[in-house]
Amino acid sequence: MPTLDPGIGEKFSRRTKRAINHDGSFNVRRRGGPHRHDPYQWLIQMDWYPFIGLVVVFFTVINVAFALAFMALGLEDLPGVAAPHDGVQDFLSALFFSIQTFTSVGYGHVYPGTNATGFLSSVEALVGVLTFALATGLLYGRFSRPTARIHFSRTAIISRRPDGLPCLQFRIANQRNNILIDLQARVLLKTVNPATNDQTYALLPLERDAISFFPLSWTIVHDITSTSPLHNLLPADYERLDFEIIIQLKAYDDTFAQDVHARNSYTHDEIEWHRRFIRAYEVGEDGIAVVDLDMVHQTEPLA
Amino acid sequence: MPTLDPGIGEKFSRRTKRAINHDGSFNVRRRGGPHRHDPYQWLIQMDWYPFIGLVVVFFTVINVAFALAFMALGLEDLPGVAAPHDGVQDFLSALFFSIQTFTSVGYGHVYPGTNATGFLSSVEALVGVLTFALATGLLYGRFSRPTARIHFSRTAIISRRPDGLPCLQFRIANQRNNILIDLQARVLLKTVNPATNDQTYALLPLERDAISFFPLSWTIVHDITSTSPLHNLLPADYERLDFEIIIQLKAYDDTFAQDVHARNSYTHDEIEWHRRFIRAYEVGEDGIAVVDLDMVHQTEPLA
Amino acid sequence: MPTLDPGIGEKFSRRTKRAINHDGSFNVRRRGGPHRHDPYQWLIQMDWYPFIGLVVVFFTVINVAFALAFMALGLEDLPGVAAPHDGVQDFLSALFFSIQTFTSVGYGHVYPGTNATGFLSSVEALVGVLTFALATGLLYGRFSRPTARIHFSRTAIISRRPDGLPCLQFRIANQRNNILIDLQARVLLKTVNPATNDQTYALLPLERDAISFFPLSWTIVHDITSTSPLHNLLPADYERLDFEIIIQLKAYDDTFAQDVHARNSYTHDEIEWHRRFIRAYEVGEDGIAVVDLDMVHQTEPLA
Amino acid sequence: MPTLDPGIGEKFSRRTKRAINHDGSFNVRRRGGPHRHDPYQWLIQMDWYPFIGLVVVFFTVINVAFALAFMALGLEDLPGVAAPHDGVQDFLSALFFSIQTFTSVGYGHVYPGTNATGFLSSVEALVGVLTFALATGLLYGRFSRPTARIHFSRTAIISRRPDGLPCLQFRIANQRNNILIDLQARVLLKTVNPATNDQTYALLPLERDAISFFPLSWTIVHDITSTSPLHNLLPADYERLDFEIIIQLKAYDDTFAQDVHARNSYTHDEIEWHRRFIRAYEVGEDGIAVVDLDMVHQTEPLA
Repeated sequence: MPTLDPGIGEKFSRRTKRAINHDGSFNVRRRGGPHRHDPYQWLIQMDWYPFIGLVVVFFTVINVAFALAFMALGLEDLPGVAAPHDGVQDFLSALFFSIQTFTSVGYGHVYPGTNATGFLSSVEALVGVLTFALATGLLYGRFSRPTARIHFSRTAIISRRPDGLPCLQFRIANQRNNILIDLQARVLLKTVNPATNDQTYALLPLERDAISFFPLSWTIVHDITSTSPLHNLLPADYERLDFEIIIQLKAYDDTFAQDVHARNSYTHDEIEWHRRFIRAYEVGEDGIAVVDLDMVHQTEPLA
Repeated sequence: MPTLDPGIGEKFSRRTKRAINHDGSFNVRRRGGPHRHDPYQWLIQMDWYPFIGLVVVFFTVINVAFALAFMALGLEDLPGVAAPHDGVQDFLSALFFSIQTFTSVGYGHVYPGTNATGFLSSVEALVGVLTFALATGLLYGRFSRPTARIHFSRTAIISRRPDGLPCLQFRIANQRNNILIDLQARVLLKTVNPATNDQTYALLPLERDAISFFPLSWTIVHDITSTSPLHNLLPADYERLDFEIIIQLKAYDDTFAQDVHARNSYTHDEIEWHRRFIRAYEVGEDGIAVVDLDMVHQTEPLA
Repeated sequence: MPTLDPGIGEKFSRRTKRAINHDGSFNVRRRGGPHRHDPYQWLIQMDWYPFIGLVVVFFTVINVAFALAFMALGLEDLPGVAAPHDGVQDFLSALFFSIQTFTSVGYGHVYPGTNATGFLSSVEALVGVLTFALATGLLYGRFSRPTARIHFSRTAIISRRPDGLPCLQFRIANQRNNILIDLQARVLLKTVNPATNDQTYALLPLERDAISFFPLSWTIVHDITSTSPLHNLLPADYERLDFEIIIQLKAYDDTFAQDVHARNSYTHDEIEWHRRFIRAYEVGEDGIAVVDLDMVHQTEPLA
Repeated sequence: MPTLDPGIGEKFSRRTKRAINHDGSFNVRRRGGPHRHDPYQWLIQMDWYPFIGLVVVFFTVINVAFALAFMALGLEDLPGVAAPHDGVQDFLSALFFSIQTFTSVGYGHVYPGTNATGFLSSVEALVGVLTFALATGLLYGRFSRPTARIHFSRTAIISRRPDGLPCLQFRIANQRNNILIDLQARVLLKTVNPATNDQTYALLPLERDAISFFPLSWTIVHDITSTSPLHNLLPADYERLDFEIIIQLKAYDDTFAQDVHARNSYTHDEIEWHRRFIRAYEVGEDGIAVVDLDMVHQTEPLA
């Protein structure tokens, strides 16, 4: 079994979690040293709902802060504000003036009447336009980041060729309508030594490791020949050796005109034995092929 | 005939439409599962007229909605609005105020006079600036998306070399003035088994599969030697086997500094027999070559 | 002499200009068919002065147009405009109001007092914000476009190795401080048949066709061995065969994180004989190498 | 010892500084000719604090300039300005009006009351919106520039394999949480001839020159076999020959979907002898590996 550490590590003090999670992330943390938290990266990778929440919170906090600053200067410095009734009304008046400044609406029925408020509103106007400059870049960065949305079958299967040769298979489809070109796959087997927790890796040769186009689904196949590291192994061996099938995909995304990558893995308990995949696409009466993403997972027992 | 599925599928329940349309798209739909409709991708790929229409509709709808909300709060809350005459005038006044807020013009002759309108106009101002932040990214995304605008001859032809060897040819030119570098071509033949509807693929070796520069036109040639899958086939065979010539092009775009791809196909009824291409460029008196994109299609009978 | 058309064409009806100009462009025009004029490409490739001029002209024209439209509606519809004296003053008042709307400044001392001006100013405000959204993308596109600014020696030279072997050389340096990595060079010889105007191409093997880094200058050398297409040719042959040395460069730009390309050519009258390059860099007392871009052109006679 | 100039130069008039600094820059200056100072490149590569300072300075200078211009026209041309007390108050009033125009806030309590101020404020409004269009692009360019933040061990070490074979090692880790894929390393040895200051280069073959993933640390190893240029050399030789180990790294950044590069070097006095690296990661009780960036530097004496 040739060893080929893909960079995930071989010597470990104890048993690790799976190498690669289903979302493509690794189970690794970083500490010490010049560890860089990159806020841009964080802001463009987070989900949309938290991102929008963050925008609203940020907008609220900064305007409340400026409103309090205007209150501290005294609302009589903001001519046009209605006669003060109480603190709450004053705060709201200052808040609305702040927002009108921050967004550069500036109706002007309230305006900075003194040097102090003139200066403060100038700073807020600059902060406002720069904030929206930043927001523009963030929104563009979020939208334009090319990501491969590859749909993996929930399980890998041990199937059998018509000629009786056993094989490992899993299936993928594109979740998006964008066109992926020159899709390449690389599949590794991670094995853990139960005694030492050492991890070894072996490349699993594929029946086919690249396709030109990817409009339908693709079943990736490793034949378990006599030279395969999976040869003659039983499900109990898979569990004992804590097998993990590590998958690396690469393609060119024709919409974003950039290369995209995807990763995934199947652990030993995500492998089904003696199954085969049911075809995940059919041709409609109009001659158009229809890929059913739910069907990508569908398997049936071998006859 | 070696088989080489480029990822378009081999086993089909019935006859499919052509594999690749002339615009490079596939005749495939997706359903079920986590099928992702990517609004960004849709918005940057749609044509300009629908896009501009969409912008106008969106701008109208959102401002009408805010105008109705301001009307619900009562126009007496917006000091400066001319004395209300009727619902239509009130609506227009609210609409203009809404637009002045949304675009952050904020003349101020009308302004939010109460907390409710102050709050609503604050929300609209934020929505407005974020909308234009989004629009900025969308416009940039639309413009900066590198796309190869390759002009394909309307038909492929079966021609003949001076030495008598038959060959399959088609011709391409760049529709744009941008400079494409290291243009590579790959040509596949799709054959359909009339009995089973199974599809098989064969790579067609090219006389030349890459050029360094692409200022003029390029005639791509497959020689029909005795090892070619097209050897000794007649037009009736092309139709019976539902031939489709599948073309994949890749180049580096020197304007956008990115790789671009293009696809196209010729079906059996888009192949002309015993023709040759007429040269599509000539040299003017100033020594400058002129490519005529209309001429790219021009063929003449073989002598 | 092996023939290798890099895509520039072999059969021509008459003598053409040089294949590649010193700015990397080709002497080719396009006509007919779906010839695409890409305005984005044009706007990001034009020089800065015309671009700024265009921005000013566009800004002026659109605001003059809106100003005339406001005048047509009547300035009495724009409350706040100073009492009209004459057409010029009215036009200026309308123009200033238009600009205040277009840029969304909206002071509000002049404001739209009727539905007609309310509608017109709403349209102008939308046009304004979308224009600046577009301008944002254009400015970013202009700045962020990766381009290789390669400084070529004004002439190529025919020099001689210490062992007497003649060689063709030219020299390049990076005009910018950015770091170019993995710079690759490809050099072709274009020959024109004086009788037929046919053009043939030959690859000139290089002593070295790639370097890892490019901080200094690089002298690119083709040894004129007995297998070189330049073997035993004299200056008169160079002229008779209308030699053109075609150069294609490719590198990775570490600032823009993208590949960049450059092209150039030397015609037969841009080749100096029996010269050698003078070293274009020296090391200062602080141990820092200094590249002199003017020295890149400097040659001296062979001893 | 095979020579392989990576483009850093071989012939030097005197001893140079190290070829590559720890930040990846070269010790090279450019002068003369069409040397391009690229302001965009400078603005997106500078650190954040100077950049923010520059923004504030630019904003201040341009608004002070416009304020002085408005003062030169006379503040009586700006109706709404409070009764002038002295030059300072006038300047502040003009400054606040300028900022309200530049940021397009335009409250309107002060407004341009004459053609001269109308014209000047129109120019400033255009300059303002274009400035923020530029700032948007600059901020996006700064954030979205893909850079590899590779953490190198402070020293390279001369260690020894279990079988006694000496080897050169250094260690790297990713400072960021982003995922680097297909990380490739190339290592060169620069040697300086003490007599002539000529520099020669040799490629150091690596035990492994690429990894698929890079979640942990990676120890890069050159075995000092009998064919290694380091064979049988002692620390004094390293110093005499002014050894510099030059490292070039390349990877695909999965967050930015682009290739990133990094460079570094170790000079002879940054090499420790007879040491080995202490493992820089451990597995927590939750099965998650923790990389300690401080530990990347940690070595211990060979037993």
